[in-house]
Amino acid sequence: MSETDGAFKNKTVIAVDAMGGDFAPREIVYGAVLAARDFGIAVQLVGPPEIVQQELQRHKTDGLAISIIPASEVIAMDEKPGRAIVKKKDSSIVVTTRQVSSGAADGMVAAGSTGAAAVAAQLELGRIANVFRSAIACSIPTSGDNPAMLIDVGANAECDARQLLQFGQMGSLVYTVLHHTQRPRVGILNLGSEETKGTELVREAYKLMQAQSDLNFIGFVEGRDFPMGKVDVVVTDGFVGNVALKTAEGIAKMIKLMLKQELLASWPGKIGAAIAKGSFDRVEKRTNYAQYGGALLVGVKGVCVIAHGGSTHTAIKNAIRVAVDMANAKIIEKIEKTFSLATAGSAS
Amino acid sequence: MSETDGAFKNKTVIAVDAMGGDFAPREIVYGAVLAARDFGIAVQLVGPPEIVQQELQRHKTDGLAISIIPASEVIAMDEKPGRAIVKKKDSSIVVTTRQVSSGAADGMVAAGSTGAAAVAAQLELGRIANVFRSAIACSIPTSGDNPAMLIDVGANAECDARQLLQFGQMGSLVYTVLHHTQRPRVGILNLGSEETKGTELVREAYKLMQAQSDLNFIGFVEGRDFPMGKVDVVVTDGFVGNVALKTAEGIAKMIKLMLKQELLASWPGKIGAAIAKGSFDRVEKRTNYAQYGGALLVGVKGVCVIAHGGSTHTAIKNAIRVAVDMANAKIIEKIEKTFSLATAGSAS
Repeated sequence: MSETDGAFKNKTVIAVDAMGGDFAPREIVYGAVLAARDFGIAVQLVGPPEIVQQELQRHKTDGLAISIIPASEVIAMDEKPGRAIVKKKDSSIVVTTRQVSSGAADGMVAAGSTGAAAVAAQLELGRIANVFRSAIACSIPTSGDNPAMLIDVGANAECDARQLLQFGQMGSLVYTVLHHTQRPRVGILNLGSEETKGTELVREAYKLMQAQSDLNFIGFVEGRDFPMGKVDVVVTDGFVGNVALKTAEGIAKMIKLMLKQELLASWPGKIGAAIAKGSFDRVEKRTNYAQYGGALLVGVKGVCVIAHGGSTHTAIKNAIRVAVDMANAKIIEKIEKTFSLATAGSAS
Repeated sequence: MSETDGAFKNKTVIAVDAMGGDFAPREIVYGAVLAARDFGIAVQLVGPPEIVQQELQRHKTDGLAISIIPASEVIAMDEKPGRAIVKKKDSSIVVTTRQVSSGAADGMVAAGSTGAAAVAAQLELGRIANVFRSAIACSIPTSGDNPAMLIDVGANAECDARQLLQFGQMGSLVYTVLHHTQRPRVGILNLGSEETKGTELVREAYKLMQAQSDLNFIGFVEGRDFPMGKVDVVVTDGFVGNVALKTAEGIAKMIKLMLKQELLASWPGKIGAAIAKGSFDRVEKRTNYAQYGGALLVGVKGVCVIAHGGSTHTAIKNAIRVAVDMANAKIIEKIEKTFSLATAGSAS
């Protein structure tokens, strides 16, 4: 189908890197088809046309707004992001990003190497005016009603306090769109909740956030607070955020593994597990990354969702949903406005 | 019973702060009685004699090597550790520590405020020669055969690379005693496993550890590696270590809570859970902090185990076991030897 067809009219357009991730292109194309159908949006699948076309033929796509954007190269998971992005100008990730920078798409989704996607988006989209650093925001399950959002989880191994403040501001805007909540609770991750604790970095960021009246700042939070749903936006540098995110993933995996081992180790365990299967499935669903659809690169001039490398069609579909929500909420304009006001304010 | 009695002869002596922790003195005294009986050791219970005596009367202590060491003051959880330790010279935690520094006890156990215990031990015991900083080492469950040990989990919010190297060396010695393993795998916690990733701090520590032939250094590890049992000793600064430890605790608690919620939400869930109770109990046991008996303050001139604030008698008993193991293995002499050799080596 061509983009000049009626099916594309007035639709939100999301560009999707069809070649990124462990299960590309199959699961990516599958998820994109589901998203086009369920959300009534337009999807641009970026990759070698014959390969994408072959995958598309596995699905019913009549009447769906799906187009193919050619890209001849692919960046592998083990390539150094920086060099690969600069060298491979026609790689699927670079072309996907270019769809957004040119205005041909309202947002993008890429799975696979987070580093490559972040580098491509930073280079191609550029940063929003007055934003010091872009950051990766990632949702994490909690026992509360909504997930918590960690920002940054790896784009910046080292940060200063003003950058952390901005992460809190951008995170707050994104969280509001994602979960339709007003004034999400923003906390700074620290080794204790008392004001006097921690490094100079977090204590300085504390002062900056406290002075920011548009933030619902709740102070320092600890590693045990966000899984319990005591905070919505968890601000941290990319080093600590990455360790916290991966520790959470690792511990969740460990406990599920132990549970499986212990249930399978005895007949009562096996029988009980079979009877209670529905309960286990619901826990699995509540703790599955796929429901959140991936991480957001915030601070760049365009909507950029980076899905998990192991994304299946459901995760991709949800990642596209996040991109659609962000595009429709005009998140980029909101961030631009916040930081243009901030600058005006500090100049007065 | 007096310490001059035969029951005390040739026994390892552990001083226990009877007044520290959420369930003090009851659970502390209970755990100490169990330890004296099961491990055949001598226990010194430190606190106001009449209170400790009252608790002791709840148990059969005939023939057990249990004595009471008077201490008139107690430091509360919410007191500022530094000031309280200096002010309250006759507090149970300070007197407990003094039992070790005077040589009257071979090791100590304290529950409650980690900060207060660490400050008291640092002040009273002093650091081992050539050790730059003491650190808190804490065991954490894994899906492997042995727990992993995080070092440091909060004594030093900011560290330099030489301190991290020493944490690895001390952690390796302690892990060997704790788990009877030779050459435990030592890794540095980072946001990626590639040598080029992370902050200058961890990259510099990487080089130092790689050059240390007595360490079984396996390179950088990520937050998801230690729950999977891929590393034994996880070296990190106290800020990152604290966040990782508390995130692990929080996520474990969250998943167990979700599981409980979902199992109780339906009849099949309730029935399945009842049948498979044994399996759930085993998972609970494998992920329960109480089995590890608390954290170790390493680098000070004495065996110092800091138990969880919420320690019950089992946790206290296990904490005493760790102190006994460390004392019997002469861990302090081992650390002293390692660093006296290290100094001699670097001087040559």
